[in-house]
This record gives sequence, structure tokens and C-alpha cells, in this order.
Amino acid sequence: MTPPSTPETSASLPEFERQVRKEIPLAQAMDLRFVAHDAQSLTVTAPLSPNINDKGCAFGGSLASILTLAGWGLVCLELQQRGLSAGVYVADSTIRYLAPVWSEITAVARLADGESFDGFAGMLAVRGRSRISVVCEVPLPDGKPAAVLIARFAAIDEARSRKAAG
Amino acid sequence: MTPPSTPETSASLPEFERQVRKEIPLAQAMDLRFVAHDAQSLTVTAPLSPNINDKGCAFGGSLASILTLAGWGLVCLELQQRGLSAGVYVADSTIRYLAPVWSEITAVARLADGESFDGFAGMLAVRGRSRISVVCEVPLPDGKPAAVLIARFAAIDEARSRKAAG
Repeated sequence: MTPPSTPETSASLPEFERQVRKEIPLAQAMDLRFVAHDAQSLTVTAPLSPNINDKGCAFGGSLASILTLAGWGLVCLELQQRGLSAGVYVADSTIRYLAPVWSEITAVARLADGESFDGFAGMLAVRGRSRISVVCEVPLPDGKPAAVLIARFAAIDEARSRKAAG
Repeated sequence: MTPPSTPETSASLPEFERQVRKEIPLAQAMDLRFVAHDAQSLTVTAPLSPNINDKGCAFGGSLASILTLAGWGLVCLELQQRGLSAGVYVADSTIRYLAPVWSEITAVARLADGESFDGFAGMLAVRGRSRISVVCEVPLPDGKPAAVLIARFAAIDEARSRKAAG
């Protein structure tokens, strides 16, 4: 299945947000919103208030959670749009915390350089498992990043795994 | 100031937990508990229920938050015990997610190999800033880690910074 050639913010984004907030209580506690999605990126926001730390800026754990969820969401939504069913898991991640965030948190996830969803989906179809690297940033008003995550996500086709195990 | 020579679980741990849960709403949402602390380690737990994901195991963002908070807590408590006042910030971290966690989450933070609190505190006293690396694991019942974080924390003596700026 080919992804739409002129993708805009997915019609399925509100439904995806509803499901994530229902199934992941911490996403609800952080008041996470999935605000924009296209073929290249996913943008996620959360207000400062539930994500504040003892210093009055964004808690590092909240930043880590939001960055990870934005990357995970980017991969999940792409698989949904391609009609592929697979569990998506974070395998590893590196985060650099560069500056404090004193207002609403925004995280933008994109594929890492050299990665492609076509290659990722192709491998998933052939082997039932695939990996892809995502970069996710929290931009400040001046455009510089306050935090940067690089993470690898694994997709596993559960049905094929069960079939192989049976 | 020399740290106590036979430190056991800090008398100040319940007070530290109360303060963290009050000042970091996400720690409260995760139902985080600081359960044991000595000169070498800090152990933090959280029940699965508020930290669950769409697959029924621990959410990666919760693991990242708990691991980060355990490392941060280890550094903060050591500074407290030495009577040192400094803000502690996570600078960067790498997490490997190795296995799903299907029950209560436990995270144990220790200094990374080659690090010492004496060196860290000495540098803080001399320069008003210092860095230290912490390793934090989520052990499974069989002793193998489900997740491992390596993180660098920066301590900044705010009073000295203000004095320098003034």
C-alpha cells in the first residue's frame, strides 16, 4: 500500500490522541496533545503546569516522555496509514538537555537522516520485524532546540510472530 | 564536610519524597516512592498501574522518568548530606530498553565506574559547578536489567552564580 501522495494532518490524529491518552495514563497526566502530522513529522504539545519541576521549568522526565511519545507516534501513525499492523517499541534513545523550557512544551519528531519509511515497511513485510531511527526536538521560540532525542524504534508484526511460534 | 562514615537509608528520605512529589506533579502521577538510600545507591519504585502502556507493560516514558529521577535523587541526596546547596540538572542520558516490565517498576541508581562524590563535591566547591555520571537500572526478578540509563548530571551552586553575576 502506498501512502497518500499529498499527506496533510491525518484525519486519524484526534482518534490516535484519544486512544493514546486512554491507554497510557501518563500521557493523560501530562495532558499530551497530538497537534499536527504529515508524511515528514509529528508535532506533540503539553502544557507546562502538569510537567513542571522543582525549579519551575519543564521536568526532564516529562521532556523524555514527550520526546519518546512523539517519535513512537510518528512510527505508529505511518504504519496505520500504510494499513500495517505491528507493535512499536522504543529500543534505545539518547537525549541531550540543552536549555530549560519555561512554557508549553512542543516536540517535533522526524526520521533520522538516511532513514525511509519505505525501507522500514519493506523490511517489516519481509521479516515481520523492522527498526527505524527518529530524531525529535523541543524547539525554543528562537528556533534553537531545548532538548534533542535520537531513538531507535522496533516494529514487530505480532500476528506473524504468533504464526511463527504456533 | 565529610559524609557520615556508616550511612544507612537516610532519615531525610521520606521528606525528600514528599518534596519531590509536591514539586514535580508527574512524580505524583507516577506514584513514585523513594524506598532506600545509602552511600552507594538510591532505590525508587512505582506501581505499574499509573505507568502502563497500550501493551499492558510499563510505558517507556515512565521508565525514562523513573530512571532519570532515581539518578537525580542520588545526586541531590548526596549534596544534602554534605550540607551543599546546588541545583541539580540532567545534562544528557542514554537509555537501553532491554525487556518489558510487567509488574511494579524498581529503579536503582549508582555512580558510574570511576566517579566519586568526593571529586564531584570538590569541583563544586572550587568552581561552583560540577558534573557526575550515574548508572541506573530497572532489575527484573532474575536480576537481569529491563532498562539501563547512563546519565550525566550537572550541579550548579546558584548562590555563587548569583554572586558572580552580581
